[in-house]
Amino acid sequence: MISRYSREKMSCIWSNKSKFRIWLEIEAHACDAQAELGVIPKSSADAIWKHGAFAIDRIKAIEADVKHEIIAFLTNLAEQIGPEARFIHQGMTSSDVLDTCLAIQLSRVSDILIEDVNALLVVLERRAFEHKNTIKIGRSHGIHAEPTTFGLTLTSHYAEFQRCRERLINARKEIATCAISGAVGTFANIDPFVEEYVSKAMGLQVEPISTQVIPRDRHAMFFAVLGVIASSVERLATEIRHLQRTEVCEVEEFFSECQKGSSAMPHKRNPVLSENLTGLARLVRMTVNPAMEDVVLWHERDISHSSVERVIAPTATVTLDFALVRLTEVVDKLIVYSANMQLNLNKLGGLIYSQRVMLALTQAGLTRENAYALVQRNAMAVREGKDFYDLVAADKEIRAEISIEQLKELFEINYHTKHVDTIFNRVFGRS
Amino acid sequence: MISRYSREKMSCIWSNKSKFRIWLEIEAHACDAQAELGVIPKSSADAIWKHGAFAIDRIKAIEADVKHEIIAFLTNLAEQIGPEARFIHQGMTSSDVLDTCLAIQLSRVSDILIEDVNALLVVLERRAFEHKNTIKIGRSHGIHAEPTTFGLTLTSHYAEFQRCRERLINARKEIATCAISGAVGTFANIDPFVEEYVSKAMGLQVEPISTQVIPRDRHAMFFAVLGVIASSVERLATEIRHLQRTEVCEVEEFFSECQKGSSAMPHKRNPVLSENLTGLARLVRMTVNPAMEDVVLWHERDISHSSVERVIAPTATVTLDFALVRLTEVVDKLIVYSANMQLNLNKLGGLIYSQRVMLALTQAGLTRENAYALVQRNAMAVREGKDFYDLVAADKEIRAEISIEQLKELFEINYHTKHVDTIFNRVFGRS
Amino acid sequence: MISRYSREKMSCIWSNKSKFRIWLEIEAHACDAQAELGVIPKSSADAIWKHGAFAIDRIKAIEADVKHEIIAFLTNLAEQIGPEARFIHQGMTSSDVLDTCLAIQLSRVSDILIEDVNALLVVLERRAFEHKNTIKIGRSHGIHAEPTTFGLTLTSHYAEFQRCRERLINARKEIATCAISGAVGTFANIDPFVEEYVSKAMGLQVEPISTQVIPRDRHAMFFAVLGVIASSVERLATEIRHLQRTEVCEVEEFFSECQKGSSAMPHKRNPVLSENLTGLARLVRMTVNPAMEDVVLWHERDISHSSVERVIAPTATVTLDFALVRLTEVVDKLIVYSANMQLNLNKLGGLIYSQRVMLALTQAGLTRENAYALVQRNAMAVREGKDFYDLVAADKEIRAEISIEQLKELFEINYHTKHVDTIFNRVFGRS
Amino acid sequence: MISRYSREKMSCIWSNKSKFRIWLEIEAHACDAQAELGVIPKSSADAIWKHGAFAIDRIKAIEADVKHEIIAFLTNLAEQIGPEARFIHQGMTSSDVLDTCLAIQLSRVSDILIEDVNALLVVLERRAFEHKNTIKIGRSHGIHAEPTTFGLTLTSHYAEFQRCRERLINARKEIATCAISGAVGTFANIDPFVEEYVSKAMGLQVEPISTQVIPRDRHAMFFAVLGVIASSVERLATEIRHLQRTEVCEVEEFFSECQKGSSAMPHKRNPVLSENLTGLARLVRMTVNPAMEDVVLWHERDISHSSVERVIAPTATVTLDFALVRLTEVVDKLIVYSANMQLNLNKLGGLIYSQRVMLALTQAGLTRENAYALVQRNAMAVREGKDFYDLVAADKEIRAEISIEQLKELFEINYHTKHVDTIFNRVFGRS
Repeated sequence: MISRYSREKMSCIWSNKSKFRIWLEIEAHACDAQAELGVIPKSSADAIWKHGAFAIDRIKAIEADVKHEIIAFLTNLAEQIGPEARFIHQGMTSSDVLDTCLAIQLSRVSDILIEDVNALLVVLERRAFEHKNTIKIGRSHGIHAEPTTFGLTLTSHYAEFQRCRERLINARKEIATCAISGAVGTFANIDPFVEEYVSKAMGLQVEPISTQVIPRDRHAMFFAVLGVIASSVERLATEIRHLQRTEVCEVEEFFSECQKGSSAMPHKRNPVLSENLTGLARLVRMTVNPAMEDVVLWHERDISHSSVERVIAPTATVTLDFALVRLTEVVDKLIVYSANMQLNLNKLGGLIYSQRVMLALTQAGLTRENAYALVQRNAMAVREGKDFYDLVAADKEIRAEISIEQLKELFEINYHTKHVDTIFNRVFGRS
Repeated sequence: MISRYSREKMSCIWSNKSKFRIWLEIEAHACDAQAELGVIPKSSADAIWKHGAFAIDRIKAIEADVKHEIIAFLTNLAEQIGPEARFIHQGMTSSDVLDTCLAIQLSRVSDILIEDVNALLVVLERRAFEHKNTIKIGRSHGIHAEPTTFGLTLTSHYAEFQRCRERLINARKEIATCAISGAVGTFANIDPFVEEYVSKAMGLQVEPISTQVIPRDRHAMFFAVLGVIASSVERLATEIRHLQRTEVCEVEEFFSECQKGSSAMPHKRNPVLSENLTGLARLVRMTVNPAMEDVVLWHERDISHSSVERVIAPTATVTLDFALVRLTEVVDKLIVYSANMQLNLNKLGGLIYSQRVMLALTQAGLTRENAYALVQRNAMAVREGKDFYDLVAADKEIRAEISIEQLKELFEINYHTKHVDTIFNRVFGRS
Repeated sequence: MISRYSREKMSCIWSNKSKFRIWLEIEAHACDAQAELGVIPKSSADAIWKHGAFAIDRIKAIEADVKHEIIAFLTNLAEQIGPEARFIHQGMTSSDVLDTCLAIQLSRVSDILIEDVNALLVVLERRAFEHKNTIKIGRSHGIHAEPTTFGLTLTSHYAEFQRCRERLINARKEIATCAISGAVGTFANIDPFVEEYVSKAMGLQVEPISTQVIPRDRHAMFFAVLGVIASSVERLATEIRHLQRTEVCEVEEFFSECQKGSSAMPHKRNPVLSENLTGLARLVRMTVNPAMEDVVLWHERDISHSSVERVIAPTATVTLDFALVRLTEVVDKLIVYSANMQLNLNKLGGLIYSQRVMLALTQAGLTRENAYALVQRNAMAVREGKDFYDLVAADKEIRAEISIEQLKELFEINYHTKHVDTIFNRVFGRS
Repeated sequence: MISRYSREKMSCIWSNKSKFRIWLEIEAHACDAQAELGVIPKSSADAIWKHGAFAIDRIKAIEADVKHEIIAFLTNLAEQIGPEARFIHQGMTSSDVLDTCLAIQLSRVSDILIEDVNALLVVLERRAFEHKNTIKIGRSHGIHAEPTTFGLTLTSHYAEFQRCRERLINARKEIATCAISGAVGTFANIDPFVEEYVSKAMGLQVEPISTQVIPRDRHAMFFAVLGVIASSVERLATEIRHLQRTEVCEVEEFFSECQKGSSAMPHKRNPVLSENLTGLARLVRMTVNPAMEDVVLWHERDISHSSVERVIAPTATVTLDFALVRLTEVVDKLIVYSANMQLNLNKLGGLIYSQRVMLALTQAGLTRENAYALVQRNAMAVREGKDFYDLVAADKEIRAEISIEQLKELFEINYHTKHVDTIFNRVFGRS
């Protein structure tokens, strides 16, 4: 996580201030529960809410001595609250606070990521409808295949991000649990009621069984989902990069007045935002493997995952948020050159209709192999600069099967767009 | 995927025979649908079901020429069926067959993997109840913490595999879609009805929008889930490896009569199955990253993912199946040395009760810091071989707060197991 | 490793036959050394060379019982040799044989990989010289930048594979060590002389210190190098994919007469080999992470790495060999459309000379900022279809600084190729 | 890279201040070279050295407008230098500065990493000699195998870090190159002399061929080496974690007076530093894959790698530096409990001598299989609490082959340490 690729809205969730505030709330709610159980005096629980505060610098100073962040926090808290502080954290262990806090932080960043995807979906839908009938060539292997529309291209990404949205909602559920179960998860020194109470108060589910720590398969799944979403971001960014290349020039990232594309070449307009998204996707994805390795804690827990999470949790979430917002802007302002789309479509002299001709030949009674051969021999001649329609129209063997009227019909573009509405209806529920 | 780590049941799904059989069924169902639409004669569709067959060697021979596996298959099919074959595959593209076939294969292996996890859950539950009250020390950082039971340890893994089961069910849903949408997904040459028909016939969902290929974010998610499950396998395997080490000796993998632990050291009994599981987990996990890179196909598709999937789909699924079955056997037959668990528990002379003493001191009115210091000074003396109870009982400052009767109570083991039923109820719905 | 992407030459090194043959040689050489030391009778050592043989099926049958591959092998060997066999393997442990064998296998595959890179270098050099002066546009961000030559493009890849070659030679050195040091590497039951003897006989270096196993950082480094080389393969493959796309069409993979590009679209010629290389690169790269995880064996060794290496060693080496050979063929036969390169170069109406104009303005005394602005305003007008030279020639502010003669000179292509020889000399030592 | 796991010495190399300072030097040296060539006035080059300065905040402000960091830097530089600034950066492109700067930064961090490894080697050597003859049990699979010494354990890690040192030196060479070759690497607007001049001035090698950017296979190799070293760090950290576990207790991380092991359990001393190293290793390792993906830039370059490197370059290098220094401290102060090592060694009642007994039986004429069986039957009885020596001494079949004197000799510990000097000599060149 570096500021260049961060939004304050996300990065502040990972700040010390945010973290200590959540710790304080967890401890305070736990005290309320303990007071309700009669384990500690009600007055103490009240004192925590009333006088509870923390000073980040002081915590860091204490931590330098005790080498334990939670103990440093509690010591600082006791300094603020006074004698009543002795009931704080009773029966709890550090992980009860740390892991529940992480669950809250991950829930909050998930909420923003879900908003991000929603915003992206809105933009994708708008632009998909805008270009529902903007004809362009479809490409497989980077080679012209058959016509499609730019709206369909965007719809394909829309459907993918819809799935990402569902995955994100699931991932949020995976990590939104609370554990307050003591040193090895047996509730020896703390009643399960406290866990239930704090879960409810903080909007989390109870972790059914913890072993001091919340099991890390939950987090592995969470980061894996972010990795998949990052890959979907990269797919769309790569599409834009391809379509913007000089020879294709079907779309272009918005380029502001004062922007400079190259320090050396004043004529350049580069798809730098989309390229940047490609890189950001790698950064999100690289967190998946360490998150999976983190699952394998020893016995009731070790602390190997801690340093990993301190880095990957902010990195993956802040970077993905930044990427989703950037992608939304890119799509929102994307310049679409529909005239160029048409020019490119015509580039191969009608070759993109080759399949239709072949199918017509098969329908007329030829074997698939013969039909294929007849079409291919004309197709290859197009490479020498001839027009495919003219070639086919002049091919006696083909014309023996297909009349000129029928042939003209085979080269109709509308043939390729007749099911656009069907697909839009499937994905958007409207067309 | 190598035979050493494969079960026939799984690996046969990835055989050429299985693949070509599925291709044949997809083509035949598509012909039925086309016949229903009146696009091809009903007699042709019938002929395919009647005479449809394939010869693997012949397909391979044709492929060597045409360098295209589907065309080779179709050519071979035509050889078997005769002239009626010309209607097969009409309006379809290779990916329609390939991707729908992959969806079916992945669904089938998913079904077996779900069975595997179910079988593992059954064994984990049985052994968890068997050892519900088998006391052992809980360990954080590999260091004795507080008592727990071996049943709880197994319950923690049970709950984790329950989650894995849910993830697997979701993952199966992700990849069980059918696409028959033509060269760039526009249904230009094939009616969407065919896709709907084949989906239903093959037990799949319709892919709402495809671009010749089924979008690969689905597969990325699938492999990511396998990677998480592999990590959960590794966690349990690592637990067993730890508990079997000579100094701990709390459990032992079953060791058959004629087995040899070491060619050089006849006395050895090594947790080799669990170590093996650790390695197998890495093999499953390594497929996650390429699966994510596969998402980023160019435009309507390229073929970069194909070689990757030819390797990782069998590798990940066959290996995980093997690992789950092996893990189930290991847990099923695991020898549990409960006497050693008790011996280890007593190792630190009662030190594991240190937290209770500290809490009692806090309850008696000491600050947390003072209580911690009083206990810690006695705790550190245990390292010189003294008994913690004796030390505490002789510590005047402690005894000023705690009577000898109260002290005895603090060293009661039952205190630590009082919520075992609560946890069992949460996880198993019974205790 | 699947046969589709394997060459027999490589995959046979990983066969059981090859492995058992190496085991036999290691055991026999060790017996020679032991006989030289007087530890075992010379006659026994001779008997092993004379009667030493193995039957793979029989070994597999024994292994099914004893669950230990080396013991099964030794038992089978004893069956063939008779009583003299009792001196085989004396003082050795399984890993002495296994790890030394792996070192030999990895050395042999390295030799082939080095040959592969050498062959690729030969082809790259030939084609680089062939196209040394084939002008084409250089592209940054997929956008036209300034002219270069196709020979320079190939030279850049040549230099990269030269580095790969050096890395491969280093990687081979890393893993070509022999360890025969006994159960925990102390030579308790075997003299270091045996290790030295076998090392020499098998063409390996002595492992300075082993702990039953050869340390796995060596192997991690080896696989990491393969991962880097795979990435270099992917870079060149991606270049070809880009240059072959319909709108660019500067190169094309060789397309054989009977090949079919698409089952549905007879006109297609797709860069499928290069796309395939992109996928194969991912397969090689995915082995890097498990190889690194393998480093962390417990204490003197555990067996977690074994299953990993059984899969990744063949997968990474066989796949990379296949990819290198395929890439060499692709480059060797690559069809280069130099006329299209020229057409593309002219596409932007001279815009690629924008930097030169800017530099001339700076030389004439303008500030960099002003020069940039003057050029950029003309550059952006080219997008409306105008010719950059005409625009600049008509721009009074520019012409105030630059004469028409000077301007013409600025649009000279040779200006861009004047250092091609310098670069060729640097890389090839000739031009 | 987060401050918790950073040393100022390393992280400052990645600061904006450090970066802009290097940029300034590169530009100034380039001006010197240009002046020497007569392309720009000498006075201008002098002016840059004299008045060259930068204001970070101002650069950031300009960048917000122009969205190009190098242009922002140059603009700010011009503000400081005045009209003479117009000759700065002439003929160069941003990457000339960026990539050469990165090479310098990576060289500098490499120097520190090499120092770190050197310091670790010194400590490992000292402690290896200190414990050269400290007998302990060697463990394979976590199970007692045969005796070794703690000095040998440390020597094994020493040898591994010696290799890491060599790899690091190679990795530094890989990335220490300078490229000043212009927009597509053709030197169209800048003489190769400038590149040579700056290379020399900045202590780098000339990049033989660049394409605007320095090829990223160099960086991929660099990060791969860091990943291997991180794995070696993890291996040693894991060894310490194992040896510190309660039941083993052979070593312990140094524990300062005021440190607290657990907020809940005052008796705990956990190997938290070593566990932390395990996590840090994952953080370094996760950068390897994105670095390899970065290799595949499109054509002459795209900018996808940039965001990746902005994150992984600091993360991998700063984290590895921190880890190496922490590991050095851990080893330096490691508390070694040699008495516990002896206790653990004796745990299995002499079972660790089983191989010697078996070998003696073979030497006496038994087949390997019979010898193995005789020893194994006694070995298994030890598990019921009997002493292996007593068992063997009472076994008539064994005693028929081995006298009591010979037997005693077989249970001699010195037998296992007789080659310690040999190994020390191999690794340290002294013993």
